Amino acid sequence: MKKVKVAVLGATGMIGQRFVQLLEDHPWFEIEGLYASERSDGKKLKEVNKVKDYSFRPETMERRVEQIDVAKIGKNCRMAFSGLPTDIAKDAETALAGVGVAVFSNAAAHRMDQDVPLLIPEVNPEHLEVARSQATFKQNGGFIVTNANCSTTGLAPPLKAMQDAFGLKLVCVSTYQAVSGAGYPGVPSLDILGNVIPYIKNEEEKMEEEIHKMLGKVTQHGFEPANFDMLASCARVPVIDGHLESAVVLCQKDPSAAQVVKALREFRSEPQRLELPTAPIFPIIVRDEPDRPQPHWDAYAGEPARARGMAVTVGRVRKKDKYVKLFLISHNTLRGGAGGSVLNAELAQAKGLLK
Amino acid sequence: MKKVKVAVLGATGMIGQRFVQLLEDHPWFEIEGLYASERSDGKKLKEVNKVKDYSFRPETMERRVEQIDVAKIGKNCRMAFSGLPTDIAKDAETALAGVGVAVFSNAAAHRMDQDVPLLIPEVNPEHLEVARSQATFKQNGGFIVTNANCSTTGLAPPLKAMQDAFGLKLVCVSTYQAVSGAGYPGVPSLDILGNVIPYIKNEEEKMEEEIHKMLGKVTQHGFEPANFDMLASCARVPVIDGHLESAVVLCQKDPSAAQVVKALREFRSEPQRLELPTAPIFPIIVRDEPDRPQPHWDAYAGEPARARGMAVTVGRVRKKDKYVKLFLISHNTLRGGAGGSVLNAELAQAKGLLK
Amino acid sequence: MKKVKVAVLGATGMIGQRFVQLLEDHPWFEIEGLYASERSDGKKLKEVNKVKDYSFRPETMERRVEQIDVAKIGKNCRMAFSGLPTDIAKDAETALAGVGVAVFSNAAAHRMDQDVPLLIPEVNPEHLEVARSQATFKQNGGFIVTNANCSTTGLAPPLKAMQDAFGLKLVCVSTYQAVSGAGYPGVPSLDILGNVIPYIKNEEEKMEEEIHKMLGKVTQHGFEPANFDMLASCARVPVIDGHLESAVVLCQKDPSAAQVVKALREFRSEPQRLELPTAPIFPIIVRDEPDRPQPHWDAYAGEPARARGMAVTVGRVRKKDKYVKLFLISHNTLRGGAGGSVLNAELAQAKGLLK
Amino acid sequence: MKKVKVAVLGATGMIGQRFVQLLEDHPWFEIEGLYASERSDGKKLKEVNKVKDYSFRPETMERRVEQIDVAKIGKNCRMAFSGLPTDIAKDAETALAGVGVAVFSNAAAHRMDQDVPLLIPEVNPEHLEVARSQATFKQNGGFIVTNANCSTTGLAPPLKAMQDAFGLKLVCVSTYQAVSGAGYPGVPSLDILGNVIPYIKNEEEKMEEEIHKMLGKVTQHGFEPANFDMLASCARVPVIDGHLESAVVLCQKDPSAAQVVKALREFRSEPQRLELPTAPIFPIIVRDEPDRPQPHWDAYAGEPARARGMAVTVGRVRKKDKYVKLFLISHNTLRGGAGGSVLNAELAQAKGLLK
Repeated sequence: MKKVKVAVLGATGMIGQRFVQLLEDHPWFEIEGLYASERSDGKKLKEVNKVKDYSFRPETMERRVEQIDVAKIGKNCRMAFSGLPTDIAKDAETALAGVGVAVFSNAAAHRMDQDVPLLIPEVNPEHLEVARSQATFKQNGGFIVTNANCSTTGLAPPLKAMQDAFGLKLVCVSTYQAVSGAGYPGVPSLDILGNVIPYIKNEEEKMEEEIHKMLGKVTQHGFEPANFDMLASCARVPVIDGHLESAVVLCQKDPSAAQVVKALREFRSEPQRLELPTAPIFPIIVRDEPDRPQPHWDAYAGEPARARGMAVTVGRVRKKDKYVKLFLISHNTLRGGAGGSVLNAELAQAKGLLK
Repeated sequence: MKKVKVAVLGATGMIGQRFVQLLEDHPWFEIEGLYASERSDGKKLKEVNKVKDYSFRPETMERRVEQIDVAKIGKNCRMAFSGLPTDIAKDAETALAGVGVAVFSNAAAHRMDQDVPLLIPEVNPEHLEVARSQATFKQNGGFIVTNANCSTTGLAPPLKAMQDAFGLKLVCVSTYQAVSGAGYPGVPSLDILGNVIPYIKNEEEKMEEEIHKMLGKVTQHGFEPANFDMLASCARVPVIDGHLESAVVLCQKDPSAAQVVKALREFRSEPQRLELPTAPIFPIIVRDEPDRPQPHWDAYAGEPARARGMAVTVGRVRKKDKYVKLFLISHNTLRGGAGGSVLNAELAQAKGLLK
Repeated sequence: MKKVKVAVLGATGMIGQRFVQLLEDHPWFEIEGLYASERSDGKKLKEVNKVKDYSFRPETMERRVEQIDVAKIGKNCRMAFSGLPTDIAKDAETALAGVGVAVFSNAAAHRMDQDVPLLIPEVNPEHLEVARSQATFKQNGGFIVTNANCSTTGLAPPLKAMQDAFGLKLVCVSTYQAVSGAGYPGVPSLDILGNVIPYIKNEEEKMEEEIHKMLGKVTQHGFEPANFDMLASCARVPVIDGHLESAVVLCQKDPSAAQVVKALREFRSEPQRLELPTAPIFPIIVRDEPDRPQPHWDAYAGEPARARGMAVTVGRVRKKDKYVKLFLISHNTLRGGAGGSVLNAELAQAKGLLK
Repeated sequence: MKKVKVAVLGATGMIGQRFVQLLEDHPWFEIEGLYASERSDGKKLKEVNKVKDYSFRPETMERRVEQIDVAKIGKNCRMAFSGLPTDIAKDAETALAGVGVAVFSNAAAHRMDQDVPLLIPEVNPEHLEVARSQATFKQNGGFIVTNANCSTTGLAPPLKAMQDAFGLKLVCVSTYQAVSGAGYPGVPSLDILGNVIPYIKNEEEKMEEEIHKMLGKVTQHGFEPANFDMLASCARVPVIDGHLESAVVLCQKDPSAAQVVKALREFRSEPQRLELPTAPIFPIIVRDEPDRPQPHWDAYAGEPARARGMAVTVGRVRKKDKYVKLFLISHNTLRGGAGGSVLNAELAQAKGLLK
């Protein structure tokens, strides 16, 4: 099979570099070009590499980064991965779809658009079909698909499993988010060393609206959001990678803790059935130890090797009255960032959306 | 006024040393003796000082620590502050009350006893009277009063203010707890550096039952717990002092965020009316900044100087649907530990329980 | 005594805010105006307060910050404290001296100038007199005096005490520097959480040349640098405040560890003799514990209250062969920053340099 | 080739578990049994696993740990790896050698013994031969070989390369040591969060005497220590893994920085020539970036995969006057612990010491 040529947008940022890392040796995709803002134009990746070391291959470090050129990308690439900042992403991604490119974006700009799938392949694979209704798809095959916010992404698979099995009435979640979620340079060390910051701009709003969109249905009138109470409180902690979340869930049925564990452990979905390259064999791992999951041990969970950091790890599943309590973690720049969009692209490819 | 002679039990531990610090220059109380386990017997405080430096006075550092001797304490002291480990506290505190000592304890051993007030003077000052029903009180004036768990203590005053003003239906709280809460040596650095541990043994159970006892009523049949859903999830973060908590509250009424802020800001209680020495002028401080409270800036809130670390700081009060969301912080070894019991003792003294 | 009106330049930066904190209630000086770059012009301090909370007085928080206006400052102030970035400081400070202002600067711009005292009042008070040779001093009384680099400042007093007592042949120092030394936002948390960065731009060069200038003599030909081998290696550690340093010193004489301790403990200098308001009673504190000094306990050492963070704490003084080994710490933004320049201004005032 | 059966002593400690990890799939060695103190006797590794997760194979996690039984080990194993605490190691290792076992130890107990090689295969492979002079070797083939202290181990290879090329006169080193070096539970978080502890018991003495033994010669009279001034200052920083060191070296010749870099980069030794399984291809990696090496990026340096964490990374090689300054890092529980002894065992096997 000939590999699909892809562009990486925002290649020098935190998420962009995770895209590069995941695409360096991807079985289906091949990096055609690295693109970023004017500032990096013409420089080698190793010169503008903000995160200093993800063990890229030497030849990758020597690649030059170019300024974003929509026409050129449209000519050379069938697919683009976007790690652009939201404000730049809005127009750039629209323009790329306009020249026939399938855009898989980590940016928030188009997530809540009426015809853009906000996609986690394990959670709402059927939403992908909405991309076919985008005007550009009909014209030239171009479309936009986004992954969800990093905190939402870890929460969604366990909620989906519980929604399917028991129905949802109330979800109350507090986050313990890693600093890599704020990009580089991101959070000043003076603000976070030995401290917690109980505020991440727009994060709670994103979690609350995105989860409803993803756990909702697609009808002939478009996305119909799910209907349960959803409360998010977001805080930043002095951790490098991995967003931990404390969740309380009230279900329509009243499952025991053991039933919840079973539902989570047995949860499989489209990416597992299709054996997508970056799909974790077990999308939800449930730990039995009393003190897990922890960022230090569980952020990078996921098998096989390509799916490292793609599993969600759940622990401390327990009941209090009729409420289910649990902790979960997922890797915010892999599962909740670049890895999410790579898996989205694999699903789109497998489903024949790329012509 | 002649000062009351007091004993400090567990004087070499994390809480014990906070007791020493708060009692060094107390206007009503005077340290008669420092007591601890056999291991420290006869040693100077500076030799067994686990936490190395709380700027004790030089003469305090030279004081010798003695093994606990109930008879001796009963003869010399009218009052004792206990920072003992729970397992030792159970019998030692009972024995001390038995010889006529008023015991103000930070230990969990007697907190849920049927005739022991679990007391936060701002929250349930009327519970103190239950101490008069203890058998020892009638015999010789001895009694036990406990402060609440450190996490419960920060949560209780804002909940009390909201309970009074709006009624409570559901409280869902996740904690971000400092390592000093685990004592010394406590949490190994290998476990917590750059990490979060989503488990603190028995902590959630304590929060859930203690809050109900404190926000409940005293009737002729004893304590009648409050009746609302209470869910706690507890985690340890790499912070030295100050327990941050994320709370979602569903009230019986549906107050606006502004009404909640007003109720919290205007909350005053018995310690403020009585002008107890260690009472903060403003028991609940509400910050308007978008990103407060934070351990780094707010753990030590409280005026006047004696009440440093005795205020609870609340921030990010906001509504989502009918739910109130907020963050709060309090100092776990001051307000939530030694400072809590010192304030309890001041209330007891002011209320004439010490004969 | 009427207070001297002073301007604070760079008032919104890390050092600028320490100046404000130290000058809010200074017995000799009074803040006339807060000045910063265009960006902050007209804003209240509380709006541009980068470091969020140094417990400024409410009225200070309401003060407006103005753009730097040399003529206006020259008209209203006899003295200015500069926390400006080096590149801006160079011309701005020269211009201010040109209009008759005594400039006390934390910036590196003029530190090595031939007629500018690089001053630590305990170390080289006699260097201050060189300011009288500045062209502006003769014209209008304006002059520039700088404090030393933050790492150099902690090292200089112990070295001075040893130089006086034993002579110096070789000094080899490695630093463990706090993140506040890099200003705000400064060091990204992604770079320093759980990590050490063995590089601080120009820091080693500054330490090596500044120590020679300060420990050197003033002759009729100007500054004559001290003559001993000086090797500095600088690293950043995940600590908020306080630069720790590991030093090996080879002296001309061969003192015992006890003799070194004695020389350090007995060291007093001009600020102590003159009882300058911000001078620590004991400029060098020597700890006997095996594991001190530590940032957590010793960064803020210094008595009386006004001199908090102004003492240098030394510990682990020991001999290996003929070498003296020791650790030292000082507060990088107080003693090693704003506090240093405030003490310089006090010395200048006491010595009659301000007409 | 039939694999050599080996025992792992102290299998539940920090170093013990690194031994298990390195021996799980070793090409020459095979774990016969896991041994530890009485406390763990009969328990499965997963029950006593202190460090929680080194991704052991599931079958390894199920292995039972036994109490140390010298006779049994002597019967079943030709080789033992010791991660025992020093006080237990002293007699246990002697006893094991007495029953014919080749003991490769991380403990300090026998490091300075007159007939025990303190061995880093890249640095002093010829010292291994001294093991043949041990009384037990002649009797039954048993002997003891130790690896060096973790801080000494990182320093020794670059010093050896410089000693060979330029001669050594003075080495002055300050360390930035990770908390994993203190074992588990080890350093309390209250002591190290946001702090540096400038003291590690006996560490400086170990570095100073061990480096002289290893860089010295073996003569007919035994070990003859090297003769240069060696000054070590040791501090603990809040880092999980990887000991960073700042070194100043004065050589007999006066090499340029470029000549030093060349000597370090070209350094190869016996393990590379013999292609030992755990030997890094490049024992010393020199980085050109201005701000490396760092624990975060360089602690695990080393190729091929089996030698991960076995290379020493050097950076910032620079001259000041006649002194060479550099920073270096090595992994304290791999290269500086279990990995060191595994490599020692490989050298002994290759050199025919195991009969």
